[in-house]
Parts: sequence; C-alpha cells; structure tokens
Amino acid sequence: MTSPLRLGIAGLGTVGTGVVRIVQDTADLLSARTGRRIEITAISARSRGKDRGVDLSAYAWEDDPVALARRDDVDLFVELMGGSDGPAKAATEAALSAGKPVVTANKAMLALHGQALAELAEANGAPLRYEAAVAGGIPVVKALTEGLAGNVITRVSGVMNGTCNYILTRMEHSGLPYEEIFAEAEGLGFLEADPTLDVGGIDAGHKLAILSAIAFGTQVDFDGVQLQGIERVSIDDIHRARDMGYRIKLLGEARRTDAGIEQSMRPTLVPADSPLGQLEGGTNMVVIEGDAVGQIVLRGAGAGEGPTASAVMSDVIDIARGFTLPTFGQPASSLAPAKRANAVTACAHYVRLMLRDEPGALARVATVLGQAGISIDRMRQYDHPGADAPVLIVTHPCAPVDLSDALSGVVATGVVRGDPVALQIQTP
Amino acid sequence: MTSPLRLGIAGLGTVGTGVVRIVQDTADLLSARTGRRIEITAISARSRGKDRGVDLSAYAWEDDPVALARRDDVDLFVELMGGSDGPAKAATEAALSAGKPVVTANKAMLALHGQALAELAEANGAPLRYEAAVAGGIPVVKALTEGLAGNVITRVSGVMNGTCNYILTRMEHSGLPYEEIFAEAEGLGFLEADPTLDVGGIDAGHKLAILSAIAFGTQVDFDGVQLQGIERVSIDDIHRARDMGYRIKLLGEARRTDAGIEQSMRPTLVPADSPLGQLEGGTNMVVIEGDAVGQIVLRGAGAGEGPTASAVMSDVIDIARGFTLPTFGQPASSLAPAKRANAVTACAHYVRLMLRDEPGALARVATVLGQAGISIDRMRQYDHPGADAPVLIVTHPCAPVDLSDALSGVVATGVVRGDPVALQIQTP
Repeated sequence: MTSPLRLGIAGLGTVGTGVVRIVQDTADLLSARTGRRIEITAISARSRGKDRGVDLSAYAWEDDPVALARRDDVDLFVELMGGSDGPAKAATEAALSAGKPVVTANKAMLALHGQALAELAEANGAPLRYEAAVAGGIPVVKALTEGLAGNVITRVSGVMNGTCNYILTRMEHSGLPYEEIFAEAEGLGFLEADPTLDVGGIDAGHKLAILSAIAFGTQVDFDGVQLQGIERVSIDDIHRARDMGYRIKLLGEARRTDAGIEQSMRPTLVPADSPLGQLEGGTNMVVIEGDAVGQIVLRGAGAGEGPTASAVMSDVIDIARGFTLPTFGQPASSLAPAKRANAVTACAHYVRLMLRDEPGALARVATVLGQAGISIDRMRQYDHPGADAPVLIVTHPCAPVDLSDALSGVVATGVVRGDPVALQIQTP
Repeated sequence: MTSPLRLGIAGLGTVGTGVVRIVQDTADLLSARTGRRIEITAISARSRGKDRGVDLSAYAWEDDPVALARRDDVDLFVELMGGSDGPAKAATEAALSAGKPVVTANKAMLALHGQALAELAEANGAPLRYEAAVAGGIPVVKALTEGLAGNVITRVSGVMNGTCNYILTRMEHSGLPYEEIFAEAEGLGFLEADPTLDVGGIDAGHKLAILSAIAFGTQVDFDGVQLQGIERVSIDDIHRARDMGYRIKLLGEARRTDAGIEQSMRPTLVPADSPLGQLEGGTNMVVIEGDAVGQIVLRGAGAGEGPTASAVMSDVIDIARGFTLPTFGQPASSLAPAKRANAVTACAHYVRLMLRDEPGALARVATVLGQAGISIDRMRQYDHPGADAPVLIVTHPCAPVDLSDALSGVVATGVVRGDPVALQIQTP
C-alpha cells in the first residue's frame, strides 16, 4: 500500500465537519477504494474552541490557513472557508504554489479567479478540484469533465440554488407573498449572510459560469452571465404561471450558439410536468445536452453537510487514486475567452405590467410591441380594484434582447406604471 | 504531448460505428481534453465488406479479434462484439494478459465473469472499464465508483432496460395487449436476437448485478438477482395500477440489508408522479442512495449509437488521461462473495388471481392469506363474463418471500385457476 494521503482542512463549518466525519467513520472503506489511508493531520478555522460534535484532538491546529497549506505534513489542502478572495484564495495559492493538490467547495473563488488559479495549478503540476462547488452532492463536475467528455456539449441548464427553489415552491404551496417567505427562509438560516447572493441569483450564476467553462472549453466568464433574481416574482406570477401549466424556477441556461456563448440565470417558466417543473424544496437538477449522448439529467441535494461533504470526498478520493486533469478539463492555456452572445436565443415570454387607467392604454402597448416585431400569443387585462390594471402578455418566441428593447418603448409611452416584469418561458 | 493512444476496435455494429465516428469527428477536442491524440489503428468485425457509413480504409483489418487484441500497434482494446463468452471473452483475456487496457460495453460478460476478469486485469496491471455496459449514456458506473465513492451505498434502483419500458408504456398508451406490442417492438428491431434477454429481465439483471458489486464491494452475483420478466403483465394490470396512481416498470433494486445483499429485477408498481413513474419509452433512470449524499437520480438514453458510444469514449478518455482503478472500484481480492438476502424487505404487493366460480372461494383465499400473516389492504372481485372471476388484492407491507409462500397455499386450495400474478409496490 502507498503512503497515506494527509489532509489539511481549512474551514470547519457544516461541510468541513461533514468531511471530518466521513474520514473518521469510513476509514477502511476509503482505504479499500483508494489503496491508501486517508488521514487528517492539521486543521484551521475561525473559532478553535467551538464544539462541532466531532473529535478534533488528534489534529494539529493552525490559526493561519496559509500556514496550514504550507505544512510539511499536509499533502492535500482542503479549502472550505468560502469567500472569493482573502484567506481562501491566499491559502489556495500557497498550496498550489507548493505543488500541493487543492480540493475546494468555493464557487465564488472559482467563478471569479478560475482562470488564474487553473494556470497556477497547471504551472505547479497540482490538481485543483471543486466538485462540491456546484450542485452539492450531484457529481456534475465529474459528469461534464469525464463522463461526457466524448461529447461536444451544446447546452447546460438547471436549478442550482436550493434556497431560491425553496422560496418559490413555498410561495406556491402557501399562497404567501415573497416578502413573508423570504423572512421565513432567513429565520430558518437558509440564506447567505448577504442574501443577495442567493435571491439575486449570484450564487447560482457562479455555478453556471463554472459549468459553462468546462462545457464549452472557454475561460470562466461570470460577468457574462445575465443575472436576474427572484425578488420581483410575485405570488400572482406564480398563480398565473400555474394556470398556464408552468412553474417558476430560478433557471440557469448556458448555450453554445453560432454567435458565441449565451449564459443566463433568471426566473423562468418551465412546464409543470417536466423534470425541472417537479423539483421541490432544496433539490437541485442539472440537465446536460451533448451531440452524442443526447440529454442527461442529474438530480440530488444541492446543499447540506452530507451531500456537500460527499462531493468533497469524491475529489479527495480521485487525488488519492492519482487521477489528475486540468482544472476545467483541458489545459488552461487552451481555454479561449468566452465570446458573449447573450439574450439571442428566441423563446416565448411571460410579461406582467401595470396599465394606467387611461383610454387606449392597452392599444398603445399592443401597438408598440407590434412595431418592435414582438408577436403576441395571449394578452389579458385583469380585474382591478385600484386605478391601475394588471395586464398579462404571453409572447410568441422572440429574442430576449428584442423584447427588452420593446418593453423600454412601452415604458416610454407613459401608459404603464413601474417596470414590467418579463420572464422567459423555457424552450424545450 | 504524450504519444498517441492507439485503439483496436472489435465489433462494428451500431455502437462500434458510433465510436469510430466520434474519434474521427472530434479528434482535436479529444486531444485537448486528454493531452494525447486518440487514433484507431485496427478493427475487426463479422462482415468486412458491409457499408457502415464511415470510412474505415485507414485501419488495419483482423478477422480474429484475439489477433487484434495482441497487435503491437494496439494500445487499448475496445470490445464491442457482445456475448458473455466466445470471441469477446477470449479477446478481452488476450488483451488483459498482454497488460493492455480494455474498454467494453458487454454487460453479460461482466455479469457472468466479472470476478475472474477483474482478477486478470489487476494481475496484469491493466484497467478493464465498462461504462457503456450499464444504462447507455448515463455515466452511472463513474458516479458509483468515483463520484459517490465517499459514501456507504445503501441502495441502487432503477429502470435499466429501455425495450421493456417501451413495451410497458406503449401498452398503456395504446391499450393493446402485451403480445401485440411485443410483436411491434420485434418488428422495429428493438429486441435482442433472443428476446428473453430483454423481456425476461436478464439483460437488466446483468446491469443490476454489476452496479450491486460496485455499490456494496461484493463479487458480482448475477445468479443472486431475483428475476421476473414482464411477459405476464397484462393490459388489465396496467389499467388497474393506473387507477391506483401507479405505473408498472421493470424495476431493479439492489439493497444492503442487515441479512445481506438483496437484488431483484421485476415488474413493480411505482407512483405515477415519481421520477421513475414518469419515464417514457426507452429512457433509463438509476437512483443511488448513499449515507452522506442522500438520493441521487440519473436519467438519460439507455441505448442507441450516440449514447452508448459516448459512454465508451468516457472510458477511453479516462485511460488516455492515465486514470486507473480496480474493475469494481476496489481490489478484486477485497470483494467478498455476496451474502444473499433475497425477498426479505417488506413492501406492499399487487396480486391478481382468477377465482373459480365456487361458493366461498373468495373467503378461502382471504382465510389462507390471513393464516399466513398476510394483511390485506384492499380486495376486489371484478365483473366477469366467463366462469372465473378476476380478483385484485393489495396487501399491506410484507416480505415477498412470505407472500410467495402464502400464494402457494392459496393455489393448493384449488379455488384459483393458474398461477396468481404478484407484483411488488415500490417502497419509497
């Protein structure tokens, strides 16, 4: 048997504790599966004294994660602190520079600094793995980089933020408005310290940008993700979508088009009876389309101690087995900058706007949309107790960018109050 | 860049042709992803002259696959002939004995000779990979051996034979009986030359036995799979199941129980609104449960040129990247014989039997079941034009082995005609 693989773990929150638990509880199984003992030698976290429900007494303690990464008795650095910069990035760079493999769950760091870190990893011959950064326990990074590597990938889509899916499904089942369910989720501890990361779609956008880079062989381009959060999705939108046979999900879409790479993360109407439409609560789902394989759907828990620790361990096991591949599945130097082609793929849209109570207002809206080439499938003005009338429009397929321009034109007429809400309807 | 990886491909049916196409059409992409050129140097098939729609003129031809496997210009032997024994096994053994990696789609060979082949592979330091043997394009072997390797796997279940799923869903949608849809499937070329392999559940049983060995670290034990085909599922069963909110699927279940490993492949009632219940046509789905990750669901095309060739290529790419692991995820010598614990996990059952038109017959059935400790949830006698009356019984959860004994007792009373049909109802 080869020498043990000695882990240094920085960050002992939920996920870190879960990793410690797996290493302690399944040592023999891990050894049978990798041919090596997997051991923890040193740890680091913000608070040393906290009771985490696991015995940490056998491990050396470091206050400084960079020092942890550099220790001679650490072969593999496990980064579970989070944060795109600061100590997480510094310690990751220290480990890679020392030629040590790094396993991380840090989607923000990968999404914002993925290219530089990939170059550093490859320059030092050290793998940088991050299965836990995307979709929790679902082995989607492995599926894309390895399992489907014989395919030209054409599209990656999915629900990748469990908190948003929880909020949207809770709104639907309870009939309560966004603000109330948001407060409930906050009380349950489901939201990040900065909740915009969740409900603004940023966290999910980080994940999509990572998958997009692997899928299309481009440099990770988080700034190229068109982001729209769920804050403006109303309970009325959810009910009207349901009446039309749809549910609203925070859906990520990354597509290879003739014009370039299209990435978006936005609330989207998906058919209620489709696999994505049936997702409840915190479950994640990723759909991958390749030229040979067709469509592959992966579903599982997107967060939580066990699922995320499972993903961390799969990377640790790969490294124990000696598997090594470039960070995004091909050499960092071969990744081209992503040519952005956003909002070009045509799809039907759901549009909600508040019409001022003026004669001819609805006709003005229809005229402006028609002049902009937006063809209307359905249009309905609802009963209204107040002065303004809610109007629901479903368009025929059109480019999102064209609809956006047309709606600016509608707003400019002065017949609507506030900004219209426009949601895409997923193309099959 | 490292030296090219030279493939010798034996078997040029649908899958073999698909592999040739991917190697030819995406050479640069494969090279970017693996750091090596992947080339085909030699091929072998039954018929040399046949037009397969791909240009094979650059490849050396061998009539004998064993000779192909031994060629000096073949680094990796790709076995796509099929058949558990004969040339496929001989050529696989020849390649492994020469220390050459083998990639195969041959579920029968793995299910029946997996242990011996794994030992041979490891003795010669040559990987034996078989992603394409299970569930077509779904990267399920990789998910189990690698992506979820940090888990104690507790259960693997799923629909793994597209032909059976096609027949069952066609029966439901058309309302036509089994015999007619079977003939239709045969006419469409969906069935194996020996159709029992499909409709008898043998093909799917092979796949389940392979997944079970990986999941539980046991020697592959196909003989331990309780097999029941779909031949006796009637259109009435399908309609009655639907009325109760279920659909009938040929479902594989492999469970780790306190008593040992339980493996079965049999028509089963699954909730119509569950992911498994919604599967249509030839799609496959595998559900994996692990102690850390919870439940992971994988869905995709279970057969066909592209999906299966995609799976073959993932193994080829792994080998090009230098990844190597024992055949079933841990050394063959560490795999214990599977202790069988079949038909012990309690579940509800659907039972259909034909009652002779005799006074007190229904009471006799109920009495015998009651004496055997089988508790009845629902029991209904249907209208009957003939002398015999169809009776439908839904039991409360009981061990399948106990129900089987009880039904033997019912048959022994002489009040039923023929053998009862008993189908399990999936436990969540």
